[in-house]
Amino acid sequence: MTSFPILTDGDVYSSFEYEWVLEAMREAFVERAAGTLEAPPRWRVDAGEGELVFTAGAATGAVNAAGFRVYETFPETGADHTALVAVFDATTGAFEGLLAGYAVGGLRTGGIGGVAVDALAPDDAQTLGVLGSGFQARSQVGAACTARSFSDVQVYSPTPEHRDSFATKLDDEGDPSVRALEDAEPVVREADALLCATDSTGPVFDPDWLEAGTHVTTIGPKYRDAHELPPAVLERADAIATDSLPQLEAGDRPSLLSNDQLDRTVELAEVLESPDCGRDGADEITLFCSVGLAGTEVVLGKRLLAELA
Amino acid sequence: MTSFPILTDGDVYSSFEYEWVLEAMREAFVERAAGTLEAPPRWRVDAGEGELVFTAGAATGAVNAAGFRVYETFPETGADHTALVAVFDATTGAFEGLLAGYAVGGLRTGGIGGVAVDALAPDDAQTLGVLGSGFQARSQVGAACTARSFSDVQVYSPTPEHRDSFATKLDDEGDPSVRALEDAEPVVREADALLCATDSTGPVFDPDWLEAGTHVTTIGPKYRDAHELPPAVLERADAIATDSLPQLEAGDRPSLLSNDQLDRTVELAEVLESPDCGRDGADEITLFCSVGLAGTEVVLGKRLLAELA
Repeated sequence: MTSFPILTDGDVYSSFEYEWVLEAMREAFVERAAGTLEAPPRWRVDAGEGELVFTAGAATGAVNAAGFRVYETFPETGADHTALVAVFDATTGAFEGLLAGYAVGGLRTGGIGGVAVDALAPDDAQTLGVLGSGFQARSQVGAACTARSFSDVQVYSPTPEHRDSFATKLDDEGDPSVRALEDAEPVVREADALLCATDSTGPVFDPDWLEAGTHVTTIGPKYRDAHELPPAVLERADAIATDSLPQLEAGDRPSLLSNDQLDRTVELAEVLESPDCGRDGADEITLFCSVGLAGTEVVLGKRLLAELA
Repeated sequence: MTSFPILTDGDVYSSFEYEWVLEAMREAFVERAAGTLEAPPRWRVDAGEGELVFTAGAATGAVNAAGFRVYETFPETGADHTALVAVFDATTGAFEGLLAGYAVGGLRTGGIGGVAVDALAPDDAQTLGVLGSGFQARSQVGAACTARSFSDVQVYSPTPEHRDSFATKLDDEGDPSVRALEDAEPVVREADALLCATDSTGPVFDPDWLEAGTHVTTIGPKYRDAHELPPAVLERADAIATDSLPQLEAGDRPSLLSNDQLDRTVELAEVLESPDCGRDGADEITLFCSVGLAGTEVVLGKRLLAELA
């Protein structure tokens, strides 16, 4: 093979549409429900001062994509660092192309979050709350606002410049209006859907602020000894879902979820097939634990290559 | 990251030198002996009609390379298929480049074989015997003839056109002379070092042909139920070495080697450090079981990127 398509973050971010991301993730969950999404737990390899982490998988149904994402956990970062996503045809094994950068990893997590909000938030959800203003928060908001028609988005993160810049940037992109608040409490209290997308190792809100009927998504750490979510939310949640039970259970550190909580957690693919497994009334609290279903990067990578390469 | 070096098989094969390959493999074994070569067993992932197989590793000493090779096991092949080797800096995690194709996989196996022949063949070895005339045989001969000054090479494979074309091509490249024989027996009887590089699932020679003092390398299948080597060679061998004991033991099918034979097998890195572990006299039979030490692809990939990119 002498040449193949390569997409960089610049290629992706300048031209992608959240609709593609959501469609690709819905296709991935259809395959997950049908049992055609191979998604083994991550493989971590010591690689000097850091690790290489592989998430490989395949969607062997209609999507027909196989491949992997690899990222590194070195303390250093910079323009000479990159993750890689490689896409193969799952029937023939032909190599279809490479995505170098971080866009696929972030966008597929955002897309999964968007599918989860659509499946679990109350039908009349109007206000989207966001705790965190980084890379992950951005794609969560983009996908959630494509999946559902929120009337407004309220964001809080501890550094004023970060939350203001985040809100200004997203507000400029069009509907809905996005504004930064100076305190987490009203963001949580007024949210119909609350997205926690931080790297905080301690709870980022007081669980007493959480009102009946709210959907909560947690993207950040969810270990027993490091978690952005107040543990009380797990006790209060009427339904708990995740994108991958095996990945949730395969963590290298003890999970924030007790065994009883793990036992009642359902996969998002199951909720999409059988909505009864999810929200059962406007006053319920629902929780989505995003862990990163393997195989989804490859499904999105294939779609991005098809659209942009 | 918007661009990075990529080498194709054409780039590599048109310009590489076997000296680089041997030097890189010797460096890898120095790291193996020092305990700085991370080389976990392969990771295989179901990917539709085939598998994706990952060999990841890192040389965290002087070589300072981390990364992986991925190849696929789909029944189909063709110009739109490729393996990939990705190289990262093992200290900073910076991405250094990609090699797309099969050259690195074949050349590093050849290079390991060359180091093994140099370490294990009798000092006055003159004749190199080769069973097989494919991709792997070619790099085995190239590296062995760079590591040692053989006076002649004799090759046999069952298809006359294949062995003739192989011999003609290599003979044209210079010393030593290479010729194809019509029968395996004289190739085995006259060899001081014998390279078996076939994909045969049954023994490719009669063990009675093997004369005292010969070194034998087996590249092909070495399972209990599929092996190119006559099992009697394992019983006759005075010393057995391999590039990776964990990989030899981690096979997904039972090994051709009995537990007793595995127990007396030493790593090539150990032979290089302590030659006593290898050949102990001109009349001994030595055996090298090539299984593919992970991490070596990355070490060679880094060298090729440094030389050619």
